[in-house]
Formats: sequence, structure tokens, C-alpha cells
Amino acid sequence: MEKIQSLTGMMDLIENKANKADTANGIFYTEHILKDIFETYSISEIRTPALEDSSLFKRSVGDTSDIVNKELYSFMDKNDKSITLRPEGTASVIRSIIEKKIDNESNKFWYLGPMWRYERPQKGRYRQFSQAGVEILGYSEGIAELEIVSIICSINKALGIENSILKINHLGDKESKEKYCNALKNFLMPLSSKLDEKDIQRLNTNPLRVLDSKSSETQEILKDAPKINDFLTDQSLDLLNLVKNTFSEECNIKIDHTLVRGLDYYTGFVFEAVSSDLGAQDAYLGGGRYDDLCKQLGGKDLPAIGMAIGIERLSLLTKTYKKNRTLISFIIISSNLESKAYKIAHDLRSINSSIDIDVQLSDGSLKSKLRRANKDNASYAFIIGEDELKSENIIVKSLNDENSEQIIMNISEIENFIQNIK
Amino acid sequence: MEKIQSLTGMMDLIENKANKADTANGIFYTEHILKDIFETYSISEIRTPALEDSSLFKRSVGDTSDIVNKELYSFMDKNDKSITLRPEGTASVIRSIIEKKIDNESNKFWYLGPMWRYERPQKGRYRQFSQAGVEILGYSEGIAELEIVSIICSINKALGIENSILKINHLGDKESKEKYCNALKNFLMPLSSKLDEKDIQRLNTNPLRVLDSKSSETQEILKDAPKINDFLTDQSLDLLNLVKNTFSEECNIKIDHTLVRGLDYYTGFVFEAVSSDLGAQDAYLGGGRYDDLCKQLGGKDLPAIGMAIGIERLSLLTKTYKKNRTLISFIIISSNLESKAYKIAHDLRSINSSIDIDVQLSDGSLKSKLRRANKDNASYAFIIGEDELKSENIIVKSLNDENSEQIIMNISEIENFIQNIK
Repeated sequence: MEKIQSLTGMMDLIENKANKADTANGIFYTEHILKDIFETYSISEIRTPALEDSSLFKRSVGDTSDIVNKELYSFMDKNDKSITLRPEGTASVIRSIIEKKIDNESNKFWYLGPMWRYERPQKGRYRQFSQAGVEILGYSEGIAELEIVSIICSINKALGIENSILKINHLGDKESKEKYCNALKNFLMPLSSKLDEKDIQRLNTNPLRVLDSKSSETQEILKDAPKINDFLTDQSLDLLNLVKNTFSEECNIKIDHTLVRGLDYYTGFVFEAVSSDLGAQDAYLGGGRYDDLCKQLGGKDLPAIGMAIGIERLSLLTKTYKKNRTLISFIIISSNLESKAYKIAHDLRSINSSIDIDVQLSDGSLKSKLRRANKDNASYAFIIGEDELKSENIIVKSLNDENSEQIIMNISEIENFIQNIK
Repeated sequence: MEKIQSLTGMMDLIENKANKADTANGIFYTEHILKDIFETYSISEIRTPALEDSSLFKRSVGDTSDIVNKELYSFMDKNDKSITLRPEGTASVIRSIIEKKIDNESNKFWYLGPMWRYERPQKGRYRQFSQAGVEILGYSEGIAELEIVSIICSINKALGIENSILKINHLGDKESKEKYCNALKNFLMPLSSKLDEKDIQRLNTNPLRVLDSKSSETQEILKDAPKINDFLTDQSLDLLNLVKNTFSEECNIKIDHTLVRGLDYYTGFVFEAVSSDLGAQDAYLGGGRYDDLCKQLGGKDLPAIGMAIGIERLSLLTKTYKKNRTLISFIIISSNLESKAYKIAHDLRSINSSIDIDVQLSDGSLKSKLRRANKDNASYAFIIGEDELKSENIIVKSLNDENSEQIIMNISEIENFIQNIK
């Protein structure tokens, strides 16, 4: 019969207990650590649906972003409504707090889950990918910026990220941003014959985004363009220095006045963490302040700052590993279905929740089961044959130490033994 | 500006730190406990994409199931290919192991994630819902059945599920299933004028599924129909009794020969856990053996048994709660942006990963911040004003004990204090 394949650009992740460095293990572990970090900051989890009305992303992420221009994973549903699989998390979070009427409160939220883009899959880019994010809502520029950078430092430290730079910039307050955009427009307009179509479109809708152009000709032109730092207020420049100095021992922070980020909704402080270990596509997290988005989506005037973290990329940089829990490989050797032996494993499991008991379910020989136990990195094999069942004993064999003798224990001895495993 | 609404039948879940009994908290907690349980059984995580080729579900879940007949969330993608948002997890897991060529191995997998059905939303039924599952692959009938029931007992215990019954049945080995289906067909055919269209269709494609009919007329007719237990072999009946007896102290298990389950692919042992606390739709988990599915999807002949768990329903039954971690509410009182004070919080957080430090980011007064700390159930407030910043001290106020005096500590005293919080 014909096999059914997974869809283009969609990955299956399968945990591999035998190989620590496996891709799926790295992704699961990275997600786990991120959740732990968010918890220590007392941030609340928010989970929005995978699907949204397509207009949400058109109105938030912005018309000049690559995401909306060509990458949205959209379709018409059975009622001829345009639906989009979310390409990012922020728009949905803001849609959600407006709908729940908590857009007048201050809140800190984190999310983690799948996102989708309908782009041509390429190395390291998938149509479904995993993204985490933090949104700090209801706080004006200041201490919230410190909190975001503090979280980034904690992530880098917990995951052992190396060769990382946190680039930060300020897009200006309303007035200086407007002045700078005008200056940039006035500089670029006479040169527009040298810009490609995309950059001309950006120039007309959101000139700042031209700075993000991938065209080398545009980048050459930009060398002589007005610089944003000449337009920023002292307050904006002070914030950049304050952030840099506060975390200088924790994190390699660089003020980079060319950083603008790929979405339309940013205002004020923006940032991006990159690592040279990632090659050309070197960013693994980024974000910034977006004080206008909530109002733009029909909600209250709510200051906000947030970041998004690309889990696949971050996990490529992760240098720490999941702490191994103690694994006991439980081996029953009998030609019958020994429910009594199985029940012993069931009961032992409830004694100490920090150990894992893997009952080997196959019909194999003792030898093959011990091989499997070693492959799975079990610390102990518990062996019950028909004799042990009759005498209510278990053979305990340490697998970490080849020279250790196997010991026969009765049920109460084994309960004691398990209780004392750390 | 017009607000954008969430889509019909799609829920937003927001953790509520102040209210333990909140729906979202219950769902997140239930998921967390399930993952812990899967880990203690040494089961590996598997994560398949949300989207699949529509033919996968048509070929696996079966033509007579309600899911495929009317509930699939399908659409045409930009290449005119029929895509479906997965309605359940098993088909994707099997598709995945065939694709990765591990359909000749024995493995235990768990998954947890969103699933979709395009049905009319009703009380407690959403278009996007969360489902967990376990698939035990490569083991023939026997000890794998015990393991599945063992996991169910552990779930009931860990979550404090009450008024629960685990119904079990056996659909027969190949030969007895065929004999029974023929007997059922012969009995029902002369009465088919009394059956509705759906039951007639089921009768023709998978007569067993007629037993699952929701028509009261059909159920009346079925009272005189041949019973499956008269067709089962001793081995099948023995297995049911063995499962029941092994876990009789842990779980209220009932052998129910009318249980058939709503999907086409089951063979052999089937089960369903129900609780009267859930009302009419009383099942919160279910599953069974499906030895033919892997071959049917183009893979090897791989025996398999699995279960799926409805997270929303299970969380309604959950009676245990997340253990509270120690929360410190960190209060900075100053008219300036005190990065030095923020940095103290950042540094303290790394000393003890089992405490949460919530830096209050607002400009509010000490009084309003203490009110917030109490609302969040913080155990301590750490207060730094301009005086404390100069003298490098922190005021520590216990919030659990109203009579306790506040204490002034220096940095090394506070480090010590935090280290010793359990």
C-alpha cells in the first residue's frame, strides 16, 4: 500500500533516550528550560489558538513585512472565511487581552508553541516551527526594558550559549522617529532609481525598514544616509547605555544603530541576540517595544514590550543537557504473562517519583533485555524470573559498575532501596 | 477601530496566579502532571506536525467514524492539495514511524498538543482542543495491556480523579471478530428498515460500530442482538479478567461487552475511562489495540496499543493542585529608573532556582505594590527605596505572617536568606 508522507517543511520530532545530542532532545530540553526561567520571573502562561482571522496579522505584523507579503500560511475555511495559521505570537496575545477586556491591566505573559509560515523550506527554516515569547504589558519605557534583557541574560546562562551578542537600538520616541523617517526619505528619494521594488515599497510605507534591506546596493547607498543616533533624544540614548552597563558582566551587549527588526509594529527600544555559531542566519531571539499595537488592534492605549525566541535556532546553541534521572530497567523473564510481576513495578513506581521504571515489554531473553537496559543508560536492572516470583524476591543488578555483584532483595528491601535513590 | 475576534470554538487560555481553580490553570497543571507520569514510565516524547495530508486520516480513522464523515478540519492549500489539521494523534505517530523507518522496532511514545475538529461548537467541545496520548508499539497482546492500564491508574491517582470507572472490552481475535460481525449483520439485516441511514452505513462497512449508535431505537433493537462475549476465545476473556484483577485495588474496572469505541482501527482489547462527574459526555480517556493500522498505512506488520486523553475533560476532574513555589515580590520605590536595584533582583534569582522573584515594574506607591504582592500570594516582599540603595540594604517583609516585623538585611544576608528558602 502506498505510504503517506509528511507535508513539505514539516518536521517530526522523536525523543532519543540513547543519544543526548539528538535534535529532538535539544528542542524539548530547550523548551523545558525556557519554561523554568519564565516561572522564576513569575510570568503567567498564555495560550492562544493556532488559527486566527487573517486580518489580525495583516493589521498587526504590517504590510511591509516579509511575513505578510509572502509567508502567511492562509486558507479559506468551509465558510469562505480567510484563516491564517499564526506566523508569530504577539498579535494573538494582544487580540486575546482585548477580547478578554484586560487591555487596561499590567501583565507579564509567556507563550510557547508551534507557528507556521508558508515559505519555501530551506536549511533550518521549516513551515512549522516552535517559538516562545514573552510580552510585558502595561509598563512604559524603563524598568520593563531591564526585565526583558534580564530574561535574555538568564536564558544565555542557563543554556550555556556561547559567542552571543545582544544588539540593541532605539527607534526613537514619536517625534524623533518621525523626523528621522523624513530625513531618510529625503535622502533616499532622489536615489530611488537604484533601489529595488521591495525597498521602494518600504520607503513609501515604513522607511525605517529600508535599513533592513538585503540588497547590497541599497546597503551601499545607506552608508551615507542619515543615522538614527543623530535624531535620538538624550533619554533614548541614556536608556541604551543604562541597559548595556547594567548587564555588561552577564552579556555581550552592543548598541547597533542599524538594527530595525523585521516587523512594522516596533517603537522605541529594539534588540536582537545573534551568535556567530549559527552562520548566516544568526539571530535566535529578538523583539522590542510596541506601544501602539494594542490601540491599532482596537484596544486601549497599552504600552508593551516583548520578545520572540526561535526554539530550533536556540536549541542549536544549547550547550547544557537534561539532567539524567535514575532509570531502572525492569525485566520479567517468564513464558507466561506475569501480571503479579508487572504489578510490583507499578507499585514501586509510586514510591519515588524522581526515578523512572521501564518495564521491558518484549518476549526477549535475559541477555537481550540486559543489552537493551545498557543501551537505554539504565542505572539498575531489576530482574524477576519464575523462581523470584515464587519466593517474592527481585534480583538487583547495578549497571553503572561492572564489578558490582547482583543482589537478591525481598519486596520490603527493594522498597527501601528505591526510596533512597536520589 | 474594529476589534478582531477569535475564531468560533477557539479558546484563549491565560494562567491566573491569583485563582487556583481557574480553567487555564487546571489545564496547564493537568498537562504538567501527565508529562511527569509519562516520564516515570520511561516513555519517549514524539511531536508530529499539526497538519497532514488529508488522506492520512481518511485511511486510518476510518470512513464510518464521525470524525471523518463530518468533523475533519480540512482545507485546500495554495497548491490545491487537501490538508487536514490533525483530529487525533495516533495516525500521525504511525505515519511518522513508517517514514522514519522505525516501524520494525518496539517503542513507547507519548504526545501532547492541540488537535482540531470542524464541528459545531457545543458545551465543552471546542474546534481546537488539547489531547495527550500514549502509543506502545511493537508488542503483541499481553503485558502491554497491563502497562496501559497501569498508566491510567497512575493518572487517576496523581490527579485525584473521583467517581471513575474504567470500562474494558475485547473485540476478539481476527477469527472471532469476523464470526461476531457476521452474526450481528445477519441479525440486523432483516431489521434494517428500523435503522437510520448512519447505522445502515455502519452495518455495511463496520457492523461493530452499530453498537455505538446514539439512536435509542437502534439500542432497543440491539438488546436482543448476539453478544460479543459469546464469540470471544478463552484467551480474550482471560485477558479481561487478568487486567481487572491486577488493578482491582487501584481502579474501578468493569468489563463492558458493549464498548466498541468510535474509531474504525481498533482490534482486540479496548477501554474507556468515564466519570459521572462529567455529565452526559462522560469519557475522559480511551483507546485500545490497533494491530493492523501500521500495515494499513503502508508500513510493517506492527502490533500496537494506545490511548488518547482529553485534556479539557480530564482537567475538569482534576482534584489536586500545583504546589505553590515561593514567590518574592520585589518592590523598588524611587522616582528614578534604578537599574542597580533591578540588578540585585537579577542576581538573587540565580542563587535559588526554586523561588520566583517578581519585580514589580509599575510606578505605583509602596502601599499599592504591597497590595499587589498580597494578591499574588507572595511569601515575602523585598523593598528597596532610595535610602536602602545608598546603604545597600533590603527590607524583608514576611507576608504570610501578619505579626512578623520587617527586617533590614544587607546583600550577603539576603543571599543567605534566599539560599535557605526551600
